Amino acid sequence: MTQSTFPNHLVQSAVAAALAEDLGLAGDITGDAVLSGDETMSGAIRARENGVIAGLPLAIEAFRQLDPKIELTIAMTDGSRVKAGDTVLEIMGNSRRILASERVALNYLCHLSGIASLTAKFVEQVEGTNASICCTRKTLPGLRAFQKYAVRAGGGQNHRYGLDQAILIKDNHIASAGGVAQVLERVKHHASHMVRVEIEVDTLEQLLEVMNYKVDAVLLDNMKPAILREAVELVDGRAITEASGGVNLQSVKEIAKSGVDLISVGALTHSAPVFDLGLDFL
Amino acid sequence: MTQSTFPNHLVQSAVAAALAEDLGLAGDITGDAVLSGDETMSGAIRARENGVIAGLPLAIEAFRQLDPKIELTIAMTDGSRVKAGDTVLEIMGNSRRILASERVALNYLCHLSGIASLTAKFVEQVEGTNASICCTRKTLPGLRAFQKYAVRAGGGQNHRYGLDQAILIKDNHIASAGGVAQVLERVKHHASHMVRVEIEVDTLEQLLEVMNYKVDAVLLDNMKPAILREAVELVDGRAITEASGGVNLQSVKEIAKSGVDLISVGALTHSAPVFDLGLDFL
Amino acid sequence: MTQSTFPNHLVQSAVAAALAEDLGLAGDITGDAVLSGDETMSGAIRARENGVIAGLPLAIEAFRQLDPKIELTIAMTDGSRVKAGDTVLEIMGNSRRILASERVALNYLCHLSGIASLTAKFVEQVEGTNASICCTRKTLPGLRAFQKYAVRAGGGQNHRYGLDQAILIKDNHIASAGGVAQVLERVKHHASHMVRVEIEVDTLEQLLEVMNYKVDAVLLDNMKPAILREAVELVDGRAITEASGGVNLQSVKEIAKSGVDLISVGALTHSAPVFDLGLDFL
Amino acid sequence: MTQSTFPNHLVQSAVAAALAEDLGLAGDITGDAVLSGDETMSGAIRARENGVIAGLPLAIEAFRQLDPKIELTIAMTDGSRVKAGDTVLEIMGNSRRILASERVALNYLCHLSGIASLTAKFVEQVEGTNASICCTRKTLPGLRAFQKYAVRAGGGQNHRYGLDQAILIKDNHIASAGGVAQVLERVKHHASHMVRVEIEVDTLEQLLEVMNYKVDAVLLDNMKPAILREAVELVDGRAITEASGGVNLQSVKEIAKSGVDLISVGALTHSAPVFDLGLDFL
Amino acid sequence: MTQSTFPNHLVQSAVAAALAEDLGLAGDITGDAVLSGDETMSGAIRARENGVIAGLPLAIEAFRQLDPKIELTIAMTDGSRVKAGDTVLEIMGNSRRILASERVALNYLCHLSGIASLTAKFVEQVEGTNASICCTRKTLPGLRAFQKYAVRAGGGQNHRYGLDQAILIKDNHIASAGGVAQVLERVKHHASHMVRVEIEVDTLEQLLEVMNYKVDAVLLDNMKPAILREAVELVDGRAITEASGGVNLQSVKEIAKSGVDLISVGALTHSAPVFDLGLDFL
Amino acid sequence: MTQSTFPNHLVQSAVAAALAEDLGLAGDITGDAVLSGDETMSGAIRARENGVIAGLPLAIEAFRQLDPKIELTIAMTDGSRVKAGDTVLEIMGNSRRILASERVALNYLCHLSGIASLTAKFVEQVEGTNASICCTRKTLPGLRAFQKYAVRAGGGQNHRYGLDQAILIKDNHIASAGGVAQVLERVKHHASHMVRVEIEVDTLEQLLEVMNYKVDAVLLDNMKPAILREAVELVDGRAITEASGGVNLQSVKEIAKSGVDLISVGALTHSAPVFDLGLDFL
Repeated sequence: MTQSTFPNHLVQSAVAAALAEDLGLAGDITGDAVLSGDETMSGAIRARENGVIAGLPLAIEAFRQLDPKIELTIAMTDGSRVKAGDTVLEIMGNSRRILASERVALNYLCHLSGIASLTAKFVEQVEGTNASICCTRKTLPGLRAFQKYAVRAGGGQNHRYGLDQAILIKDNHIASAGGVAQVLERVKHHASHMVRVEIEVDTLEQLLEVMNYKVDAVLLDNMKPAILREAVELVDGRAITEASGGVNLQSVKEIAKSGVDLISVGALTHSAPVFDLGLDFL
Repeated sequence: MTQSTFPNHLVQSAVAAALAEDLGLAGDITGDAVLSGDETMSGAIRARENGVIAGLPLAIEAFRQLDPKIELTIAMTDGSRVKAGDTVLEIMGNSRRILASERVALNYLCHLSGIASLTAKFVEQVEGTNASICCTRKTLPGLRAFQKYAVRAGGGQNHRYGLDQAILIKDNHIASAGGVAQVLERVKHHASHMVRVEIEVDTLEQLLEVMNYKVDAVLLDNMKPAILREAVELVDGRAITEASGGVNLQSVKEIAKSGVDLISVGALTHSAPVFDLGLDFL
Repeated sequence: MTQSTFPNHLVQSAVAAALAEDLGLAGDITGDAVLSGDETMSGAIRARENGVIAGLPLAIEAFRQLDPKIELTIAMTDGSRVKAGDTVLEIMGNSRRILASERVALNYLCHLSGIASLTAKFVEQVEGTNASICCTRKTLPGLRAFQKYAVRAGGGQNHRYGLDQAILIKDNHIASAGGVAQVLERVKHHASHMVRVEIEVDTLEQLLEVMNYKVDAVLLDNMKPAILREAVELVDGRAITEASGGVNLQSVKEIAKSGVDLISVGALTHSAPVFDLGLDFL
Repeated sequence: MTQSTFPNHLVQSAVAAALAEDLGLAGDITGDAVLSGDETMSGAIRARENGVIAGLPLAIEAFRQLDPKIELTIAMTDGSRVKAGDTVLEIMGNSRRILASERVALNYLCHLSGIASLTAKFVEQVEGTNASICCTRKTLPGLRAFQKYAVRAGGGQNHRYGLDQAILIKDNHIASAGGVAQVLERVKHHASHMVRVEIEVDTLEQLLEVMNYKVDAVLLDNMKPAILREAVELVDGRAITEASGGVNLQSVKEIAKSGVDLISVGALTHSAPVFDLGLDFL
Repeated sequence: MTQSTFPNHLVQSAVAAALAEDLGLAGDITGDAVLSGDETMSGAIRARENGVIAGLPLAIEAFRQLDPKIELTIAMTDGSRVKAGDTVLEIMGNSRRILASERVALNYLCHLSGIASLTAKFVEQVEGTNASICCTRKTLPGLRAFQKYAVRAGGGQNHRYGLDQAILIKDNHIASAGGVAQVLERVKHHASHMVRVEIEVDTLEQLLEVMNYKVDAVLLDNMKPAILREAVELVDGRAITEASGGVNLQSVKEIAKSGVDLISVGALTHSAPVFDLGLDFL
Repeated sequence: MTQSTFPNHLVQSAVAAALAEDLGLAGDITGDAVLSGDETMSGAIRARENGVIAGLPLAIEAFRQLDPKIELTIAMTDGSRVKAGDTVLEIMGNSRRILASERVALNYLCHLSGIASLTAKFVEQVEGTNASICCTRKTLPGLRAFQKYAVRAGGGQNHRYGLDQAILIKDNHIASAGGVAQVLERVKHHASHMVRVEIEVDTLEQLLEVMNYKVDAVLLDNMKPAILREAVELVDGRAITEASGGVNLQSVKEIAKSGVDLISVGALTHSAPVFDLGLDFL
């Protein structure tokens, strides 16, 4: 597993934008109308189901941006496994400010913990095999850095962060360039030495052709477990093997048993349901 | 249903940011390495399941920002019901530019169509009742305007856009202010005349007390259908009635039959699975 | 009166932009040339006429952004009535930094206190009547949130913050939609339940037609006080009544006596003369 | 008079920000609810009083950003003198988009024309004298470039744009530096050769001392016309003479007759009342 | 050589910021004062020495942002070798607008052509050897994407774009982690499969230890050519070999003859002198 | 020499942008992979050659933005002359955070110290003459404020910061306007009184014509030292004299002996080689 270091340099501006999105020009007109501004409250964010936490730095930042004096007791860290009822964060401070930042804090925390928790379920399924679970570029616009981090918090690996981090040659590239030979010849001459090269193959025939060249990884797309097994044998350690397509919590174990190194799952970042957390006031 | 006008004033900067997130400084190093830059391709975005489309203006903008000369044939509009296999958008242009914008276009389109399609399923369940389906502020940071729009495209209504658009008094406000009487008294004096006021109640007793005051809407939180029915009778048209809590595709019909005006569903924006669309090249 | 809570989430970036506007790339070339950088000074911002203060958080932020160590003694709060000679804020710190932030601080404070003071004059005129004074969307670009806040500091109310906060149907909408019946029918089906609906009428005949529908407020545009009185009677508490057009410090009292709930005054935000404050050094 | 070239490089982002301020996330919920989206309308922006126009490029940009296909007939240019009833701009296009941009267009146009018109009144008063009218740094935050431009459109001159453009030594600088000799000695050594140097004096004694040094301009602050006349004689063409303080439409003529080169008026940018323009639909 | 595709998605905002830096609020006060605004001119950007061009898209964008109607004849492309006197770009348009954008256009073009030209000199020195020339992260803040592109235009390769694109383990990492074994063990478990791993070694002993592990590249820091030769033999094709330290136009040939794959040169981006180009008016 | 006050108001956002450029979305994937996150280290930034330091506030801000708790001992100030081996800044803190900010800190410090050091060499050459060394607008986009500051730190003067700060009439302006008489006539009527006016001349004949008008400075372009001497005599103190063109460390002394007030050198900001500084860990 890649380590789950938080992208701290992105937190401040992301949270400021999220608060601006919720507060608009007029701010929290409910709290402004019904509270005097002097009330204080204390509460706790608690898990309402079992799973894995991710996104605490964003939640904490949301509370602190609206109330620099807020008192927080941080009971869990990102990557912590929690059970329903567990306290994640205790809060004490000005009521108006807490109620104005609560939703942004929870929106981040529930979404990212949802990703971490779903990732953890996939990881659990492949335990005992050679396979790691990884994410894709199928992320929600504006949230990629945090979503990829949440995958790591859940025990998964990150595939490339963007088009700029690694070369991944897909069927359309091969078709446009005129074939595997042409495309890999071009890569040899035009790619930076500091980026990895992965190529997608759909059949064992394509894989055979590809293995005549030096590539870092092969993406075995939409292959049945039995075919995947043959592909892994054919590669024989000369490249990283990645399976993709048709992966879900039911199918992942069989895919993993094929011996592939990696299984990429788009759903981790595009379809993870929210993890249920709530802020209970005392 | 509120009309589904797209927030056009937000499209350009949102798409630019999403492309920057994917392209980084180095850009699409795969296309740059393996294509000459002169290749052209044509393809079609097609639905791979049945549902409702939303987000086309964002997908179109993504293609156009990287290739102002791209030729697009728009086969559907947001809100269109599609079946697996239906073509949504046809594309013809420079291969490198299309392949560099494809993922951003699809990330928007699949996510927002996922929201529209889930909304449409809820709306279908409540057909024939008085109830409308609406969303909440449980949105993903940075995507609220587009997510709320997608709810409308799916036939739903929007609840308030943010803390700045309407007053919604929750249990914590009531507790902090010292009771229903105090909180509604304060609202009368401190709220703008141009914003609606809704108040959350958990029991029929609270509802009775609330109805002594003039409010625009009551949020009936976590009430069983039988209690909801009593609540609707008690309100008797003097305020809009909104049910929330424990709403899913199984429970929503019974809730709707209670006679409430609105049913709010957080899952529409926080947990909608992606709608499956793919770009097939010809 | 709506409460005058400051839009704190907007202060930091607004002040940074205002300082950048004044300092450019080269900064304060006067202070840099004629001071050594070690000098300190102390001074006081004092009112030079009678009125109401607004904008202190912006002035304070301006001084603090250029000198985090500045010592400030805050003698008034926004909404305070001051007399010529009253001290509003005492300042002690580095001369170069104070002289570089002084103008931005005063530009905000004098403009917003000007709005608060003008609002207070209108409010004074309508004392003893049913009417509140409110502002419009005729604000200066980029300053709306602060200008609307200043109106509240002066004892006024806010009309809608923007096109996104409430529905206000004007004569052009009615003409375009084909009449009052059509436009209000459309609103019933297409408006969110969480936004108020106001409609402009120019004559009692229009008002009669409008009152066949459920609206939250009616905007009685350019009616003489006598007609306004008839309009108020006709509405009879079924909607909020707002008068607009031809309102000034001379006419407002007669308008208020008509019994309307609200009187909207564009001049509060588009034509308020500056309130005279100066920074005197000791 | 400095020429009135518009700061075109600032228009696009300023207007985009102003529209975002008015539209928020939800956009124009009135037009979206009550119009179908297909309606078109035509209208004209007309002056409702006599004065000078400024800000047309901003108004035009506002209409175009929301509707790139809008048809505009531009009847006046910035700096044009108009009479009540004169048409300034004719508009034909989509109703929803026009109604959503109208307020931003008018807010810019009315405010800047207000500044140009007020400037023109001052300029008229000093006709036949040696004096030009100029503005100050007492501008409204975020609007300086446009406000200073409007002063030029009205026939005035610009004083320095910001702290970065020229050196203006005030009483506090002199006090901090230890006297006129010290401050002007420092300027000689520490100022760039490409910036002008102006120094404020309050008495003829100070002026006498200052004239021992080479300065580009002297700011004669709060002097009576008779004293100003003596000051002008004393300077005798060796520096530009600028009068400030207590300048209004009543006093400006007498001040101008003293022979000063410039009269600076803060009110041009901080207190100009709006110029009345309206969009009449046909 | 990696291909020299321009980072088009960064051009518009970079050029807008550069123009804003030069124009400030007041704009080009020279052109505004001395030209009427109607003058046109034509001219040509010509090389004043021999070298390689880079940055044309930025220069073109600068001219177009201030004058969308400008007529440009593009005589060269990035990567073109030019001789003193060669025309690079012909320009015809409004004088005021050309003179206001000229400096920004040339600042980009001269700087980036300087980098491309210096790179080309290094590349020329190593012709006939196995070595490629590449850049480092020693770039000027804000200009990295364009500088790295200019290196490619000059025939060089790009090393990693930033800390996010590849793993490069330096002596401090090894020291902090407790040795080569520990650091490479950690990488095996914590690094993403899609990023390359390079490790710096200073001696042949370190290199021997490193080659017990699988790494993509070794950075041979500050080794004499003779030692480099031994290092290349020792690696024997199992990793990419990169030499760094003490590289200049005199030393680079000997270093290249050692057989290393890459030679990284910080000076390409941090110390390239400007390439002399001028805009001659006709 | 103009004083070297740092443009503090630009530091925070510039450094944040520079860090974002280096860290991307994924951050420092090396430090994240090979360090545990608990390691600390201490080190010192030391000069590796003789020269003048500039840019310390940017380097310090870079370290602090990633680690607010870092302990820094600042051994030099901007403008300090250092020798190879001198310590500039001592650092103690978290290893991961220091290694992630080191490159940005050094990129600023080495570049700006390079400018200051080169400026100091030119200044040294003209010691004992009347001439000051100054920079131009030939700066690198995005870095102008810092580059101009570094010139001051090295003992140089700043020419105008941008097109907005002063009027500089070049040959193209004269040609477009129809001659020296026309252009200076226009300036007299259209320029603000607060900006200096400089005019470029290429021959003594032009200079003679120019001196019939009042200008603040004359730019003597590409004149030989002997001609410059004649020009200085001809001007005779009535304007500042500035020499430009063909200035380098070899030629500058002779140029200075001509008696000109200023010598402008584009190379200071467009071609200064980096000053060698390194971070040595203890």
